[in-house]
Amino acid sequence: MNSELRIAVLGVGRMGADHVQRITRTISGARVAVVNDYVTERAREIADTVPGARVVEDPIDAIADPEVDAVVLATPGPTHEKQLLACLEHGKPVMCEKPLTTSVETSLEVVRAEAATGKKLIQVGFMRRFDREYEQLKALLDSGDLGRALVVHCAHRNPEVPPHFDSAMIVRDSLVHEVDVARFLLDEEITKIQIIAPSANPAAPEGLRDPQIAIFTTESGRHVDAEVFVTTGIAYEVRTEVVAERGSAMIGLDVGLVRTSAPGVRGGTITPGFVERFGQAYDVEIQRWVDAVHAGAETGNYVDGPGAWDGYAAAAVCEAGVLSLESGEPVAVDMVARADISGA
Amino acid sequence: MNSELRIAVLGVGRMGADHVQRITRTISGARVAVVNDYVTERAREIADTVPGARVVEDPIDAIADPEVDAVVLATPGPTHEKQLLACLEHGKPVMCEKPLTTSVETSLEVVRAEAATGKKLIQVGFMRRFDREYEQLKALLDSGDLGRALVVHCAHRNPEVPPHFDSAMIVRDSLVHEVDVARFLLDEEITKIQIIAPSANPAAPEGLRDPQIAIFTTESGRHVDAEVFVTTGIAYEVRTEVVAERGSAMIGLDVGLVRTSAPGVRGGTITPGFVERFGQAYDVEIQRWVDAVHAGAETGNYVDGPGAWDGYAAAAVCEAGVLSLESGEPVAVDMVARADISGA
Amino acid sequence: MNSELRIAVLGVGRMGADHVQRITRTISGARVAVVNDYVTERAREIADTVPGARVVEDPIDAIADPEVDAVVLATPGPTHEKQLLACLEHGKPVMCEKPLTTSVETSLEVVRAEAATGKKLIQVGFMRRFDREYEQLKALLDSGDLGRALVVHCAHRNPEVPPHFDSAMIVRDSLVHEVDVARFLLDEEITKIQIIAPSANPAAPEGLRDPQIAIFTTESGRHVDAEVFVTTGIAYEVRTEVVAERGSAMIGLDVGLVRTSAPGVRGGTITPGFVERFGQAYDVEIQRWVDAVHAGAETGNYVDGPGAWDGYAAAAVCEAGVLSLESGEPVAVDMVARADISGA
Amino acid sequence: MNSELRIAVLGVGRMGADHVQRITRTISGARVAVVNDYVTERAREIADTVPGARVVEDPIDAIADPEVDAVVLATPGPTHEKQLLACLEHGKPVMCEKPLTTSVETSLEVVRAEAATGKKLIQVGFMRRFDREYEQLKALLDSGDLGRALVVHCAHRNPEVPPHFDSAMIVRDSLVHEVDVARFLLDEEITKIQIIAPSANPAAPEGLRDPQIAIFTTESGRHVDAEVFVTTGIAYEVRTEVVAERGSAMIGLDVGLVRTSAPGVRGGTITPGFVERFGQAYDVEIQRWVDAVHAGAETGNYVDGPGAWDGYAAAAVCEAGVLSLESGEPVAVDMVARADISGA
Repeated sequence: MNSELRIAVLGVGRMGADHVQRITRTISGARVAVVNDYVTERAREIADTVPGARVVEDPIDAIADPEVDAVVLATPGPTHEKQLLACLEHGKPVMCEKPLTTSVETSLEVVRAEAATGKKLIQVGFMRRFDREYEQLKALLDSGDLGRALVVHCAHRNPEVPPHFDSAMIVRDSLVHEVDVARFLLDEEITKIQIIAPSANPAAPEGLRDPQIAIFTTESGRHVDAEVFVTTGIAYEVRTEVVAERGSAMIGLDVGLVRTSAPGVRGGTITPGFVERFGQAYDVEIQRWVDAVHAGAETGNYVDGPGAWDGYAAAAVCEAGVLSLESGEPVAVDMVARADISGA
Repeated sequence: MNSELRIAVLGVGRMGADHVQRITRTISGARVAVVNDYVTERAREIADTVPGARVVEDPIDAIADPEVDAVVLATPGPTHEKQLLACLEHGKPVMCEKPLTTSVETSLEVVRAEAATGKKLIQVGFMRRFDREYEQLKALLDSGDLGRALVVHCAHRNPEVPPHFDSAMIVRDSLVHEVDVARFLLDEEITKIQIIAPSANPAAPEGLRDPQIAIFTTESGRHVDAEVFVTTGIAYEVRTEVVAERGSAMIGLDVGLVRTSAPGVRGGTITPGFVERFGQAYDVEIQRWVDAVHAGAETGNYVDGPGAWDGYAAAAVCEAGVLSLESGEPVAVDMVARADISGA
Repeated sequence: MNSELRIAVLGVGRMGADHVQRITRTISGARVAVVNDYVTERAREIADTVPGARVVEDPIDAIADPEVDAVVLATPGPTHEKQLLACLEHGKPVMCEKPLTTSVETSLEVVRAEAATGKKLIQVGFMRRFDREYEQLKALLDSGDLGRALVVHCAHRNPEVPPHFDSAMIVRDSLVHEVDVARFLLDEEITKIQIIAPSANPAAPEGLRDPQIAIFTTESGRHVDAEVFVTTGIAYEVRTEVVAERGSAMIGLDVGLVRTSAPGVRGGTITPGFVERFGQAYDVEIQRWVDAVHAGAETGNYVDGPGAWDGYAAAAVCEAGVLSLESGEPVAVDMVARADISGA
Repeated sequence: MNSELRIAVLGVGRMGADHVQRITRTISGARVAVVNDYVTERAREIADTVPGARVVEDPIDAIADPEVDAVVLATPGPTHEKQLLACLEHGKPVMCEKPLTTSVETSLEVVRAEAATGKKLIQVGFMRRFDREYEQLKALLDSGDLGRALVVHCAHRNPEVPPHFDSAMIVRDSLVHEVDVARFLLDEEITKIQIIAPSANPAAPEGLRDPQIAIFTTESGRHVDAEVFVTTGIAYEVRTEVVAERGSAMIGLDVGLVRTSAPGVRGGTITPGFVERFGQAYDVEIQRWVDAVHAGAETGNYVDGPGAWDGYAAAAVCEAGVLSLESGEPVAVDMVARADISGA
């Protein structure tokens, strides 16, 4: 495709505003064309940071706008149903932050309405599926190396939650991610759920049932348990272990995917080559350089990273190194003083 | 800046071709306008994959082209000097893959020529500085938490090298990265180098002095050692440990940065929040969705990830979960069968 | 105490025979005086390996023997009740391998009988309490650093089990260790238990409900879950994580105790000094040397480890090192050839 | 052998006193018969803690004593030569703490004198060879799995040293362990050594060259480097990595031996079975029980660990578990109250 996708971002609270920045600065092949928020002043503030973006005051108008190719929905959950149906009506692809809608019934209506279009237009923002570790874990399961998954253990810990967070929100806003992870990894539906609320953390707000332990049973009878604990005071810890027929694998220990790879051996994969190791570094390098060049017209500095001097210094050290390789003796590095070069 | 940077990519072997793809698909705010290669047919082949890109046959013409804002240099090292000087002459920012040039003398000339322009126009492709772990290590050193760095240990291991690789290339092409890492981390020049070539790996090609141990002394008398071993048969392992006044830190063990953080404690940082943990997942999610929307016109599938059904299923499970939270008993999940919804 | 404890070992199958060796070769302050087994021939075979040990054919006679100070019970479970009561009757301390007895009722009778003696004579072989990692975990909990424990997760995985192992044995022989661990760590009784048997491992023997998930509730309402999976084909994996008010700690990952030690920090303790790091090496060193000296009368070799030559070589290298420290130059090590010293 | 080895311990400063305790409480098959120290009062104090031990005032008399079978030498280095020669003269096996003697010449004399006896009587206290991780590393090298070792990297870090520690002592007292490790692992002599003293740790005492980097070359041309840094302020860190033809292995990271086990895979061994995992726990369990039984005559408590009640509680929980396994439902645990059993 030749042209950039023109996106309308609806709802520019923290998450929506992040998406605006992301699409503008990081994503290739798309730009923010329209910004909408129920607080119009907020929409304007955000739109002003994006060249070429304009504000549309009504969310349905924004969706219907002929100069909008696709929609990002970061509005409050209760508005999703109406906005999603509008997207379907106008045939606009939509990336909808969770929840799809705020009730099972209306979610099902949205599913049916999309099915009636004969297209897949709605994506839901379960972003963990795009996390490198979850992708690795899923790929490992799909490879068949571990055989069939039998049991999944999840832990989901937050240091703290906002004051209005209640016991049901632990299920709907936190556990929901483990629900999607379980369905994603096991490729089947959950048919039974049990929530155990043991004696609560004394440090949790009065009345909050925290931690909670959820137990899922799947269609084929597999077991998933998930600890959700949102007032740990420690950090954000999200961990998943799959125990399978021929081994187990765990992610979320801050050490990458760890698996039992063979009888008696526990291991991780070592990066096979420089592309895997430094591929992302190239992306960062070029993006920062592009940004620096954009900024350079004003400063005269078109560089964000090592410059010519660093290339020269490396050459001088390596030259001495090759001499030392021949002699085995220490060799002094012969370089001019940087101060002797005005401007270097 | 409003418009996209128009970049000429010179040299489209593996590295240059990767840069073309990167700029086209991943980098925001820039596009490939011109492709050049000493094999014109190769240039044409690559340019055909990029909407709006054209071939310019002569590299100096490509640099001088008025519709080129900046240059990526991925040509063979011996051509760099002339091309870099052309970039300077035309005031074009240039991202030059290592080496800067193939001799110390010409590198110095390039440094002087750039200094004479009064601008910083040349960036050299030492991409490790943009790697997350190296960035963390540098930030840790700059924070002062560990005090002054005293000793640096590096290891650089490749599973294998191409047949033409010789002992001096281990210095110039492999060790050169450790040279830059040492200069980057310690913020000073290397004044002495010694290369030790112990008894060689029997599996190395005849005559290749592999492994090699390099010892650097810096201006202020600090010590760096680097093992370079390019025929390990194992994997790509790049490791750096800094030993400092008040602790040490290591990267490259496939477990993130590990440091001694206090007397008697070794530790890593746990991800503090979901932004740090899943921020990159959001980037990937949105980029893939944008790509899927671009492709959707043909397939009717505008989704690459969880769809409306996944949103519905999550809602149904959480609803049952909230009921179980109240009763403490297992609750069956009430869902329609997916097969009953045509198209879902 | 001056004299060695005279121990009767009853039952010398694998476990009992190990105890005989342990007491004879490793344990200080005790010796095996009497060996008993229901297969007398087996008892004799084992007794023959221990200087000063004799066989007593009847287990009750062995317990009553006036030249027996204490008893190790490694007999089959069904015989425990009678043998334990005999120990109590004769006032003999007894170390009883699990189970205490094979029913709840007889176990309670034994408890009451011991209480009636006014002494603590019976120890049960829950050996995990003596494992370094469990000791560290318990000490951490007792220190109060993590606050009150709230949730415990256990995993207990065996590569395989003998053919006669059935679903109830997974509870009685495997899960029983997690029962003791939970009681040990939480210092309270378990009041409720639920066993979930999800879809079984296809590789498990027909009819074996494996894996099983156990859920315990304690007196104060705390939650413990334990996965027991005895046909993994992988290895012996025993893992325990305690989630507490102010952090969590895990053992059994083959990396020592790992804990969250402060907001945002995950860490392990680094060995503080050489006593902690090499203390056990000293024990091994001296024990092997003592064994070598015992054996030396026959061989003329009273050494199991580095000898005088190794001391000489170390001295020669260090001497050259001190010279190099002064000069900074490489120094050749001056040593005689080993072959020149007959016998060295 | 039937009888216990009668050992004379010469020198009962910290190390010698530890050996006295070790032989008395931990080591099987030996006892301390004679204690000697140049401060007789100190010898007496230590001997008083050991049943059956007596003081001999002159070290040579102690060695010659007909009721001494073997000698542990923990006296100051300058006295070693004379005492070792006395041991050889009387044919007494001796375990000599490092150094063998305080000069290369006298060490060689001792080697020659021992060779003349035709026996191996002298062992030197390089205890690292008995450390589990070093034993594993050596066994891995000997197995041939990694091929020939090519390069060894060592790090030896102390948090602090006593005030009198000088730069040469870093070589003779600290580096000497790395000397022995290198010789042990590579099975050949070191022929050349270079000590590099980079700019010193500002926190090190005035004049102390710390850290130091040692470079060894072995007979066959292999390379060893060792960082010794004794004023880190952090912890005791001793690390060794061997880089070999077909992989590498590292110990001392507080995570056991870590190796590259195959192309692209890094791993550690998982404990294969309960003997490996809990074998040492059994030793501790039985030793503590023996000690408790010794002490029990006074207290009436012959137990140090789980007692009969713990056996009963485990039985009750497992019984309920088996019922739950059948029904799938939670089952209450049926137990009497502990308080109802006087004395339990």
